[in-house]
Amino acid sequence: MNDADWRTTQGAMFTDLYEITMAQAYFRHGLHERPARFDHFFRDYPDYGRHKAGFAVSAGLAWLLDWLEETRWRDEDLAYLKQVRGRAGERLFDDAFLEWLRGRGVGEGVTIRAVPEGRVVHAEAPVAIAEGPLAALQLLETSLLNHLNYPTLVATKAARLREAAVDGTVLDFGIRRGHERGVHAGSRAALIGGVDATSNTGLAFALGETPKGTHAHALVQAFMALGSGELGAFEAYAEAFPDDCLLLVDTVDTLGSGVPNAIRVFERLRERGHEPVGIRLDSGDLAHLAVRSAQQLNAAGFEDATIVLSNELDELTIQQIRTQIVEEAPRYDVDAEALLGRLGYGVGTRLITSQGDAALDGVYKLVGIRGDDGWEPAVKLSETPEKVLVPGDKRVWRLYDQRGMATADLVALSSEAPEEADSLTLHHPNRTNVRRELQRGELSGMEPLLEEVFRDGRRTSDEPTLDALRERCRADLERLDPGVRRVLRPHLYHVSLSTKLKELRDEMVQKAQEAAERTDDGPSDASGS
Amino acid sequence: MNDADWRTTQGAMFTDLYEITMAQAYFRHGLHERPARFDHFFRDYPDYGRHKAGFAVSAGLAWLLDWLEETRWRDEDLAYLKQVRGRAGERLFDDAFLEWLRGRGVGEGVTIRAVPEGRVVHAEAPVAIAEGPLAALQLLETSLLNHLNYPTLVATKAARLREAAVDGTVLDFGIRRGHERGVHAGSRAALIGGVDATSNTGLAFALGETPKGTHAHALVQAFMALGSGELGAFEAYAEAFPDDCLLLVDTVDTLGSGVPNAIRVFERLRERGHEPVGIRLDSGDLAHLAVRSAQQLNAAGFEDATIVLSNELDELTIQQIRTQIVEEAPRYDVDAEALLGRLGYGVGTRLITSQGDAALDGVYKLVGIRGDDGWEPAVKLSETPEKVLVPGDKRVWRLYDQRGMATADLVALSSEAPEEADSLTLHHPNRTNVRRELQRGELSGMEPLLEEVFRDGRRTSDEPTLDALRERCRADLERLDPGVRRVLRPHLYHVSLSTKLKELRDEMVQKAQEAAERTDDGPSDASGS
Repeated sequence: MNDADWRTTQGAMFTDLYEITMAQAYFRHGLHERPARFDHFFRDYPDYGRHKAGFAVSAGLAWLLDWLEETRWRDEDLAYLKQVRGRAGERLFDDAFLEWLRGRGVGEGVTIRAVPEGRVVHAEAPVAIAEGPLAALQLLETSLLNHLNYPTLVATKAARLREAAVDGTVLDFGIRRGHERGVHAGSRAALIGGVDATSNTGLAFALGETPKGTHAHALVQAFMALGSGELGAFEAYAEAFPDDCLLLVDTVDTLGSGVPNAIRVFERLRERGHEPVGIRLDSGDLAHLAVRSAQQLNAAGFEDATIVLSNELDELTIQQIRTQIVEEAPRYDVDAEALLGRLGYGVGTRLITSQGDAALDGVYKLVGIRGDDGWEPAVKLSETPEKVLVPGDKRVWRLYDQRGMATADLVALSSEAPEEADSLTLHHPNRTNVRRELQRGELSGMEPLLEEVFRDGRRTSDEPTLDALRERCRADLERLDPGVRRVLRPHLYHVSLSTKLKELRDEMVQKAQEAAERTDDGPSDASGS
Repeated sequence: MNDADWRTTQGAMFTDLYEITMAQAYFRHGLHERPARFDHFFRDYPDYGRHKAGFAVSAGLAWLLDWLEETRWRDEDLAYLKQVRGRAGERLFDDAFLEWLRGRGVGEGVTIRAVPEGRVVHAEAPVAIAEGPLAALQLLETSLLNHLNYPTLVATKAARLREAAVDGTVLDFGIRRGHERGVHAGSRAALIGGVDATSNTGLAFALGETPKGTHAHALVQAFMALGSGELGAFEAYAEAFPDDCLLLVDTVDTLGSGVPNAIRVFERLRERGHEPVGIRLDSGDLAHLAVRSAQQLNAAGFEDATIVLSNELDELTIQQIRTQIVEEAPRYDVDAEALLGRLGYGVGTRLITSQGDAALDGVYKLVGIRGDDGWEPAVKLSETPEKVLVPGDKRVWRLYDQRGMATADLVALSSEAPEEADSLTLHHPNRTNVRRELQRGELSGMEPLLEEVFRDGRRTSDEPTLDALRERCRADLERLDPGVRRVLRPHLYHVSLSTKLKELRDEMVQKAQEAAERTDDGPSDASGS
């Protein structure tokens, strides 16, 4: 794709066609400037092979705001839309509508309140609420979802890896297996969620980070083919990077040649005043090989050498490896705790693609529109009960118990002041009559989660640094119950509706059903329906 | 990310750091210009929840060649690398090496032979072979894999969807759930693999395609909230798009209100001389609702109205829906065959993320390097038997049987001329002594699959149109056995090694093992290893 076309694909037309057809329908009926409100939320946590996450980490907002600030409908976009034809060969988009778009910024007139990046977020509670002209909100749907769904997915995966790796270094090696240019958003999200560093060099540049990585099998193979063997390859690498010497030891025979050759090179490095970094294992039984490699390294006086593991790792495999090490290490006179403390994990495919569940089901739904007599809540029933929408203008509150741990997220109407109530009733978002009562005294605090981040075409605050985002994520995870945070079968975190919001939803659904029944005089031959 | 940074992330530093550290190690030892050869291949087919694909469709090459042609090491890249520090605080990259990079095109001196885009490809046979200076080949590894792995994955998924949907229209609706900017490569690959159209408007522009799409629930919700109801929304949409009127009917009650309201609008359209397109179902039991909707539409005289289905569809669900329709339709006096013929499928998440297996395990491995006495094959053993490498300079031949169907892909050495042999022995790539004998007379033809596509920094031929790629894919699928093409538990296609290649591999592995044993005098306390 040439540069101009690439630019077009990132611009205002970074959208599903139907957003544009809907915008034209609104325009024709004079509804395009009508104030409206959309909620963005996700319906369920990532579900990795039956092991559903217990929480998610929000990410992607900064680049969405970049897009909203920088993108306008250009003449080239409109020239293309002018060419698009419908089935009868007629133009799909008319001049009046295209003129309305011309030069318009995609964020014009739009206000967004959102949970800031890096924070823990939960299913069924709004992560972002957008307000503005109906057509403008419709036109940004696709891009908003694209910018937030995937990064949130990867930040969540990274937080799970962090949980499993305990204090071990976790490295993102995903660029080669990620989904083309999406890898940059993925690597950034991984860093927010808890990964220590990335091998993606260009992205590290853009973020002001230091990229990480050492060498691959090719280096060893090349020296072997040319007659210098694995040892020659290791020596060559050590000479080029005496203070950053981490050697991949599994090209031929990990324990029989790789580790012994690495040790020879490490000894010479040390003689020359350089401390070697360690080794990487990329195949075989990583737990067993880590123990056996540690045994050799320890015996040679390299008790601190790092052992980086890679090869299709994910959070479950990392936990299994650590468990196996605790079991196996004593048999080889290796201190298990010390070994766990020097492990690093190179994670690629399963992080960057969130293998097991490669998509977050984030949606963006109309929840209100300004009518002639003020705001009207908007509803949707659907044939799938879980897809029934919660209407209205909402706020999200995080409730902290007396230990300072997050105990529930409460979704309430903006007109409510739950922080002033003596007691709260928390309603299950879907199951009727499932509720929980909380006295104010049981709580140490209540925090509103949504902040205004964008107003009328501009960000309303500076972007935090990547370090600040990581710290924010770490702090939120610390206030999350270990039961919710755990990797396998986590405890379900409570996301609840306030009584007023629940009543509004029930009332709206009933009204819509009644209205549908009134018009339900379908064709006589389908009367059984 | 600002524009300049985004450009950097797409440039020469679109790579893992370790490619650059290895390149510097080669440079230091005078090996950087040494002619070398890398094979790109994938080890296994996408495996969707235990249902492994039986084939793959190559995609992504055109954009890889764009990158290779257009990308150079810029001063900004080198300025960044100059800043990167190692553990001891020293610069990781030295001036001499950076000067070698300066201004260098990433494809300089590189020749690539590849299976053209759109063709059926198989596991364990090279899809691309790159030759050129060792350091240059190393530096392009990450980008090559990133550009080919994901598009091949999605083109394969699209071909499976095409297989399941039979003659039905398949639409790509994936942009909102795909992995950020990677969606463009995904949508393009989906079109190559057999999807009819995409909703991704910017990408359709770049490819000269017409994007597709109609409307979402928000349109119906907005009119409902403002008091005009679902019927008002449908009327508004029909007025805006009288010749492209496809209505989403599940916002309230599909059979009770959605379809009857759509029929009313369709009748008025027809009175005004416009033929409606049809309806879309996005929730509930799609097979049942399709039958019941068809019943209503038929009774009202809209026997040809399209019924588009969407909601987490994939190839298995589509097959199930079609099976259920064949069973249910007669009960409602609906002609099942006619109904199947008017179905369309909107596929999003599960196409664009290849949900179930979100990454192709394509690799890029050194297989040869020029020594002082000519080319030396390069090998790798690994602790994981399937990862043992096949060395040497290879050609890939597709063998067609007397029916004209592809029966095997044969990987041979470039020095062999299998097309002139009277009989061929095909060796299983991994299992010893598993082989098959073929007489020349059993074959109708043999086709070399790899073509030179890039030489010394430039493409060697014009890019085919998207239509040509689709046609190429269709033609290859037609020559693939239905047993291999099928979606569930496909028959395994044979990828085989020639006798000479197998002998070379066995000899190299033995040599490497012997060499490893000679050096195997590890620390005495690890002598049990």
